[in-house]
Amino acid sequence: MSDFLNNLFASRNFLSCDTPFEEADAVLFGVGFDGTTSYRPGTRFGPSQVRVDSYGFEIYSPYQDKNITDFKVHDAGDLDLGFGDTVEVLRRVEYTCSEILKAKKKPLMFGGEHLLTLGMVRALAPVYPDMHIIHFDAHTDLRDEFLGVELSHATVIKKCWDILGDGRIHSFGIRSGDKHEFEFAKEHLDFHPFEVSDVPEVAKTLKDVPVYITLDVDVLDPSVMPGTGTPEPGGVSFKELLNALLSLEGLNIIGFDINEFSPPCDISGISKAAAVKLLREMIMLL
Amino acid sequence: MSDFLNNLFASRNFLSCDTPFEEADAVLFGVGFDGTTSYRPGTRFGPSQVRVDSYGFEIYSPYQDKNITDFKVHDAGDLDLGFGDTVEVLRRVEYTCSEILKAKKKPLMFGGEHLLTLGMVRALAPVYPDMHIIHFDAHTDLRDEFLGVELSHATVIKKCWDILGDGRIHSFGIRSGDKHEFEFAKEHLDFHPFEVSDVPEVAKTLKDVPVYITLDVDVLDPSVMPGTGTPEPGGVSFKELLNALLSLEGLNIIGFDINEFSPPCDISGISKAAAVKLLREMIMLL
Amino acid sequence: MSDFLNNLFASRNFLSCDTPFEEADAVLFGVGFDGTTSYRPGTRFGPSQVRVDSYGFEIYSPYQDKNITDFKVHDAGDLDLGFGDTVEVLRRVEYTCSEILKAKKKPLMFGGEHLLTLGMVRALAPVYPDMHIIHFDAHTDLRDEFLGVELSHATVIKKCWDILGDGRIHSFGIRSGDKHEFEFAKEHLDFHPFEVSDVPEVAKTLKDVPVYITLDVDVLDPSVMPGTGTPEPGGVSFKELLNALLSLEGLNIIGFDINEFSPPCDISGISKAAAVKLLREMIMLL
Amino acid sequence: MSDFLNNLFASRNFLSCDTPFEEADAVLFGVGFDGTTSYRPGTRFGPSQVRVDSYGFEIYSPYQDKNITDFKVHDAGDLDLGFGDTVEVLRRVEYTCSEILKAKKKPLMFGGEHLLTLGMVRALAPVYPDMHIIHFDAHTDLRDEFLGVELSHATVIKKCWDILGDGRIHSFGIRSGDKHEFEFAKEHLDFHPFEVSDVPEVAKTLKDVPVYITLDVDVLDPSVMPGTGTPEPGGVSFKELLNALLSLEGLNIIGFDINEFSPPCDISGISKAAAVKLLREMIMLL
Amino acid sequence: MSDFLNNLFASRNFLSCDTPFEEADAVLFGVGFDGTTSYRPGTRFGPSQVRVDSYGFEIYSPYQDKNITDFKVHDAGDLDLGFGDTVEVLRRVEYTCSEILKAKKKPLMFGGEHLLTLGMVRALAPVYPDMHIIHFDAHTDLRDEFLGVELSHATVIKKCWDILGDGRIHSFGIRSGDKHEFEFAKEHLDFHPFEVSDVPEVAKTLKDVPVYITLDVDVLDPSVMPGTGTPEPGGVSFKELLNALLSLEGLNIIGFDINEFSPPCDISGISKAAAVKLLREMIMLL
Amino acid sequence: MSDFLNNLFASRNFLSCDTPFEEADAVLFGVGFDGTTSYRPGTRFGPSQVRVDSYGFEIYSPYQDKNITDFKVHDAGDLDLGFGDTVEVLRRVEYTCSEILKAKKKPLMFGGEHLLTLGMVRALAPVYPDMHIIHFDAHTDLRDEFLGVELSHATVIKKCWDILGDGRIHSFGIRSGDKHEFEFAKEHLDFHPFEVSDVPEVAKTLKDVPVYITLDVDVLDPSVMPGTGTPEPGGVSFKELLNALLSLEGLNIIGFDINEFSPPCDISGISKAAAVKLLREMIMLL
Repeated sequence: MSDFLNNLFASRNFLSCDTPFEEADAVLFGVGFDGTTSYRPGTRFGPSQVRVDSYGFEIYSPYQDKNITDFKVHDAGDLDLGFGDTVEVLRRVEYTCSEILKAKKKPLMFGGEHLLTLGMVRALAPVYPDMHIIHFDAHTDLRDEFLGVELSHATVIKKCWDILGDGRIHSFGIRSGDKHEFEFAKEHLDFHPFEVSDVPEVAKTLKDVPVYITLDVDVLDPSVMPGTGTPEPGGVSFKELLNALLSLEGLNIIGFDINEFSPPCDISGISKAAAVKLLREMIMLL
Repeated sequence: MSDFLNNLFASRNFLSCDTPFEEADAVLFGVGFDGTTSYRPGTRFGPSQVRVDSYGFEIYSPYQDKNITDFKVHDAGDLDLGFGDTVEVLRRVEYTCSEILKAKKKPLMFGGEHLLTLGMVRALAPVYPDMHIIHFDAHTDLRDEFLGVELSHATVIKKCWDILGDGRIHSFGIRSGDKHEFEFAKEHLDFHPFEVSDVPEVAKTLKDVPVYITLDVDVLDPSVMPGTGTPEPGGVSFKELLNALLSLEGLNIIGFDINEFSPPCDISGISKAAAVKLLREMIMLL
Repeated sequence: MSDFLNNLFASRNFLSCDTPFEEADAVLFGVGFDGTTSYRPGTRFGPSQVRVDSYGFEIYSPYQDKNITDFKVHDAGDLDLGFGDTVEVLRRVEYTCSEILKAKKKPLMFGGEHLLTLGMVRALAPVYPDMHIIHFDAHTDLRDEFLGVELSHATVIKKCWDILGDGRIHSFGIRSGDKHEFEFAKEHLDFHPFEVSDVPEVAKTLKDVPVYITLDVDVLDPSVMPGTGTPEPGGVSFKELLNALLSLEGLNIIGFDINEFSPPCDISGISKAAAVKLLREMIMLL
Repeated sequence: MSDFLNNLFASRNFLSCDTPFEEADAVLFGVGFDGTTSYRPGTRFGPSQVRVDSYGFEIYSPYQDKNITDFKVHDAGDLDLGFGDTVEVLRRVEYTCSEILKAKKKPLMFGGEHLLTLGMVRALAPVYPDMHIIHFDAHTDLRDEFLGVELSHATVIKKCWDILGDGRIHSFGIRSGDKHEFEFAKEHLDFHPFEVSDVPEVAKTLKDVPVYITLDVDVLDPSVMPGTGTPEPGGVSFKELLNALLSLEGLNIIGFDINEFSPPCDISGISKAAAVKLLREMIMLL
Repeated sequence: MSDFLNNLFASRNFLSCDTPFEEADAVLFGVGFDGTTSYRPGTRFGPSQVRVDSYGFEIYSPYQDKNITDFKVHDAGDLDLGFGDTVEVLRRVEYTCSEILKAKKKPLMFGGEHLLTLGMVRALAPVYPDMHIIHFDAHTDLRDEFLGVELSHATVIKKCWDILGDGRIHSFGIRSGDKHEFEFAKEHLDFHPFEVSDVPEVAKTLKDVPVYITLDVDVLDPSVMPGTGTPEPGGVSFKELLNALLSLEGLNIIGFDINEFSPPCDISGISKAAAVKLLREMIMLL
Repeated sequence: MSDFLNNLFASRNFLSCDTPFEEADAVLFGVGFDGTTSYRPGTRFGPSQVRVDSYGFEIYSPYQDKNITDFKVHDAGDLDLGFGDTVEVLRRVEYTCSEILKAKKKPLMFGGEHLLTLGMVRALAPVYPDMHIIHFDAHTDLRDEFLGVELSHATVIKKCWDILGDGRIHSFGIRSGDKHEFEFAKEHLDFHPFEVSDVPEVAKTLKDVPVYITLDVDVLDPSVMPGTGTPEPGGVSFKELLNALLSLEGLNIIGFDINEFSPPCDISGISKAAAVKLLREMIMLL
C-alpha cells in the first residue's frame, strides 16, 4: 500500500497513542481475560472496546491542562490469549510486563479481570523491591481461595500481599468482603474503606518509593459505572476518584492497570466514557 | 429425597435467611402486587427477584460489622395473590402481619407497591397503638383518592395517617406531589422534604416508642435506583440513605417494609444490587 | 366534533401548557433537529418525547411552591423541518423566535442539538443588544469549525460570541474541549469550568440586564442524564443544577432553551424524567 | 399566531392524517389505558408513541400501491382518562365510538389494552346487529373472570361473545389460554388457532356482512413484536399477518382497533416500526 | 407457621410442579453453572429465572391438549455449587442424576451451560447402555479440547460420544464449528446440520430404544432466543423446534436437559418466555 | 518490541484476515461514516465493532465448507475521516477503491451508511464499464434528493443509476419508498421487491458480466437485524438472505460492500453476529 493511501487510514490505537515501541516511555497493552470458557464476553472485550470508543474523546485534559499527545505512549494492542488456562495467562502478563520493564518503559495494562494485576506485580516486584500499591476497589479481594480456586479476582490482593508483605498495599473505597477479609485488611494493609478522601494524605507519605496503581473500576458508584461485573452500591463519585488520582501527581508511578470494565453490562454507554477518561487522565499522571 | 441429596441443593431464601419460622425472631415475606391486571410485571417481581439475586451478595456488612447469619430471620416466601382484588390483597397482608405478630416475631415485608404498607399498619396499630412511622419516599402519597380510586399507592400515607393521626409519621426525602399534599404534610406530618439528613436528629426523639420503617426505594436518586416505576430526579444518594438508616440503630424497630423496586425497569442491574444491600442492612438494624 | 366529545380528549401540550398563543406570556416550541440525514433519531425526538412523557408529572413544584398552570405558556408544537439544510433550519428557528418576540412573548425552545441556540441568539440580539447568556454545558462548543463544518454544535458558543462579544457569555460546568478552546474561554468568556456553584454569585451581577439561558443537558453527570449524545463523566448532580437554576429567580430572563436530550440513549428512562422536570422548573422561573 | 408561522409547525397527527373531523371518512383515536394505577406506563403510552414515531415512515404502501393521504382520516388524539375506573373508561370509549358512528364515520382505535375493544363493540353492535369480528390474538381472552375481575383483557372476547353470540367471532393465531377457554372457543367461535393462514378463506364468507377487526399485536411472534406485555412464542411472522390483513380488502370493514403495543417493552425499537406499519396498512384497507 | 398461613404463600416451584419427591414420576433440578469465577451471571441464573418467570404462564398446552398438572413432577430446586471446580460440579450432577434414577424417576435438568449434560450422560449410560441422544444445538461441541481445557461446553458432545460411541447421537440444527468437527460429526454421529426437519423421521427409528434429549437453546434463531451466550444466526424458528419436539411423543424418553439460556442477555424478555414454554412442552412429552 | 513479544499480541484484523496488502487478492476496509456531526455513533462504529466482535467467530463456514484463511484478504482498517464534508468522504472512498483496483485487488467495504456505495461505484465503473450491481435493501434509495440534500443514503441507488443506466441494477427485498421511487424502479431497474427468492434465477443471467454486490443489512427483517437505523418490518430471514448470497457463487464478483449496520441500535447483540457472519460468507464467495 502506498504511504499516501496508508495515511488515509485511521489509527487503531487508544487516543492517538501512536508512538512506536522503541521511542515510547510507556507501553499500554490490553488483556481481555475474564477467566471463563463462556463465549459471551464480559471484561474480555474491555480493552478493545475502550480503544474503539476512545475515538470520540478529546486528547486534551482540562483538569491537567495537557494533551495526551505530549506523552510518548505505545499502544501494543491486546495479548492473544490462545490458552484458557489461568496460569498461562498470568505468565503471559508477567512476561509482557517484564519485557516492557527491560526496555526501560513503564507498563500500563487495561483488563480484563482484576486477577491480572498479579501478573504485573510478579514482574514488577523483583525490579522494584520497595514498591507500594495504591489499590482502588469496592471489594477486598483478600480471600485465600474463592469457590475452591486459588487464582481468582477475589484473591488477587491477597496474592500481591504474599509477595509484598505488610504495609505496602494502600486500599481505598472498599465496601464489600467477608468478615475475615476486613479483619485481615485492617491488620496487614494500609486500609481506608468506603472512601477515597484519604488518598492525598497517603500520597504525601509515598514521595520516595515506587508506586504502582491498580484501579478496579467498581470502586466507582454503580450509578457512574454500571458497566462492571459486580456493582456495589455506595461507591465514590467520578469527581472524587478523579481528584484522588490527580493528587498522585509527582509520585514515582512505575506503572498501572485499570480493570473490571465490562462492556456488555454498559447498556447506557456511560461506563465506557468513564473508562476512557480515567485511562486518559492516568496516562497524563506519568 | 435422602438428606444427603437434599443438602446438595441451594437455599431458596434471601441471603441465607433459613431459620425455621418457629425459631425466628423476624419473618420476611414478599408481596408481588402492583395493583394491575397487566401481565407484564413491574414491582410484581420485586420480591422474587431480590431473593434470587441475593445469591451473589456477601452476608457480611462492613458498615455494621455483622453477619446477617447472626440474625434469626425466616424467609416465608411470597404471598400467593390468587385474587386481583386490591381489598383482598390488603386483607392478606394484614392477616399475615397479624399472625407474625401473634407469634411474637417482627414482620418484614418486601413489595410490591407502596399501598401494601397499609396492610402492615392496619395489623401493627392495634398491637402498638403508640407506633411511629419513619417514611422514606420521593412522593407525598397523601392524596385522598387517585384517579378516582381510594386505595392506591398515591394515597397510602394518607390512609396510614387516618389510623395514626398527627405527628406520628416522619417523612423524609419527599420531592413530588400536588400543592394540597405538601400543605397537608406540613400541617399533619413531621415533614422533612428533599433530604434525609434530619433522620439522626429525629431518631433521637423516638427512643421510647415503637418505630416502623417504610422505605419507598424511589427516595433514592434515579441514577442510583432507576428500577422503580416513578423515577423522580433530585433524590438522595445511596450513602445518604444508608447513613440515615444506620442512625436508626438502637431504636425499637417493630418491623419494616421496602417497596416499589421494579425489576423490569432495572435494565443495568444496579437497582437490584441496591435493593439487596438495603434489605441486608435493614435486617441487621433489628 | 362536538365540544363535549372534544373535551374528552387529552391535551397534546407539555404539562398543561394550553394557553392560546394570543393570551400567552411565553411560547414553547420544539425543534427536533440533529443535523443529520439518518432516520434513526437522536435528539430529533427530544421535544416530542418530553411532551408525551410530561403526562405523568406533577404540575406543582415543591421547590418553588408554584403550579405551572399559574403561568401562561403556549406550547406551539415542533417546527416542521421540511429541509435537511442546516442553514435553513437555523433560519426557521430565528424566524420563529423573532415572531414570538414581535408578539411580545418570551421564546422557549426545546431541542434538538445545541447549534439551534444560534438561531435564537440571532433573533434575540437585535432586540436585546445588551443581552447576556448563561450557558450550562459539558463542552466548550468554541471551535471555529468542526470536521470542516462551520455550523455545528461544537461551534455554537463561538458563533454566539461572534455576535455578542467579550464578557457576555457566562459558562458553567464545562469539562471537555481542546486546549485552544479552553484558552479562548478563559480570555473571552466569563468562564467557570467543572462546576455550577458560582451561578448564584454571577446571577447577582446580572440583575439589570436581559438574560438568556441555554442549557445543554450534558452539563449533568452521565449518571443522572445518560440520555444525551456525548456523555462526559464528572458532571454536576441534579440538585446542584436545580439550585443553580433556582438562584436565577428574579433575573430578567428573556427566554431559554434546553437542548441535547436524546431519547434513544435514555434506555432506563431516567433522563426524560430529568428533562421534564428541568423544563417545568425553568418555566416557573419566568 | 400568523398562518405563516403556524405553517412552519409540524402536524401532531399520525402519518399526515390531518383531515378535519367534519370532512373525514374515518376517525382515529387513541386510548392509553392499561387498567392500572401504576405510573410506569405499559400500553398506556402506545397511542402517543405510535403517533410520534410515525414521523419517519413513508406515507406510501408498496403492498397496496396507495398513499395514506388518499384517505380522509381524522386523528382525534388520545382520550383523556381522568378516572382510573375501568367501567368509566369503557363508557368513554363507547361514547366516543358512538359519536363517530353518528357522524357517519368509521371508528379506528389504537390501544391500550385489549379490554377496550369491548367499548367499541358495545357501540357498534346496536348499529350493526349482524356485525362479525375478525380477531387476531395470541390469547383466547375467553375467561369469565380473571383474578376475580370480570372486566379484564383476559375476558374481553368472552364479553364480546355475550353481545354477539355464536359464530360471529373469527379468531386467528391463538396459542395460549386454559383448557376451558380452548373448549369454549371450539364450540362457540369460528376458531383457527396457531395460524392466520385461513384468513383469506374465511374472508370470502364475510362478503356480505359488516366486519370489525380487532388486532392484538401479540398475535405476532415475539421476535417481531417484543414490545407487548405478554409475549407468547410461536406466533406468526409480519409477512403472514400482513398477507392475512391484505386478504380482507373489499370487505365491508366498519372499524378496527389495534391494541397491546407496549413501548416500554420495545427496547430495540422494532415493535413500534411494526405497529406504525400495521396501522398504515389497515387504514388503507378501508 | 399455621397451615392456614402457610397456604397463603405461593409455590416456589416451576409452573405448579409441586409433587413431593417420593410421589413424583420425574424430578426437575436446576444447575446454575457457567464455568466461571466471574460474579456477573450468565447461564448461572438460568434455572432460577425460569422458575420465577414461569409464574405468569398457563399450565395448559393447546399443542398437546394437556395440563402440566396432569404430570407428577417434583421441582427439587437448584444444586448448591459450593465449589468452583468443574470436575466437582459434574460429579454433583452425576450423583444427583443417579439418585433420581435409583428412585425410579426421570431426571430433568435445566442449565446452566451445556457441559452439564456430560454429568447426566455419565449417570444415565450405565443404567441405559443402549441409550440414544437427540441433540439440538447451533454448535457441534465436538472439540477435543477448547482453549486448552478438556471439560468445556465446546467439548461436551465429544465426551458423550466417548461414552456412547458411533451412531448413538442424533444432532440437529448445527451450523457452527470448525472443519474438523464437521468432518467428525459426519463420520461418527447421525448428523443433520442446519435444520430440525428430519427429527420426525429419525424419531421413527428410535421407537425401541431409551432416548435422552439435550436441548441447547441456541439451536433457535437469535431473533427468537437472543438470551444465550453465543447467538448464531440462521437458526430454526420456535414453531420448527416445537414441531420437532412434538414428533418425539411416544418415544421412551428417559430424561432431558435444556441448557445455555442466559437471562442477562435477554433484555427484551422474549427468551425467557421461550424457555418456559419449551420446558413446559418437554415435560408433557414424558 | 521483540518478535517473540510481538507474537503474543492478537491480530487486530477481521477474522484472521492478516494477509499483507501486497500479497492479498482482496482488500477489506471500513468507512465509519454516518453523515452527521453528532458524536453519538450510529453506523459510524459499524466497521470497528464488526472487526472487534469477529474475535469469537469460527473461521470455518459449514455452508461453503471452507475456511476464511484459505482466502488472501488484507484488512486495511478504517478510513480516517478527518473531514465531515460528505463530498470529501466520497472522494476518499473512491480514491481508496481506485488504488485497490490499480493494485489488481478486489475492494471490499464495510460501512457506514449506504451513500458510501457511490464512492465505490464511481471508482469501479470506469474499470468495469459493463458492471452490474446486485442490490439488497429494504428501501428503494432512489430519491433525487432527500430533505433538500442530493448526496444521501436515500439517493444512492439513483446516483448509481445515473452512472450505469437502465437494466444494470438488480434490486431485491425492497419494501419501502415513495410512489415515485417504486415507479422509477419498475421502469429502470431489474426490480424484485419484497423478496430475495429471485436471486438465483437472476444470477444465471449474470454469468458473463462483472458483478458488484451492495448489501444494506436492513433487507433483513428487523427481528434478525434490529441493529440498523431504519428497521422496516416484513424483511427476509437470515437463511433466505444467506441462500440468495450463496447462489452468487461462480459469478465474477468484482467487489462488494455491506452497510447500515448500527451497533448502538443492537442492544441484544444479535445484529453484530449476523453482520460478522454475512461478511465471512461474502468473502468466501470471492
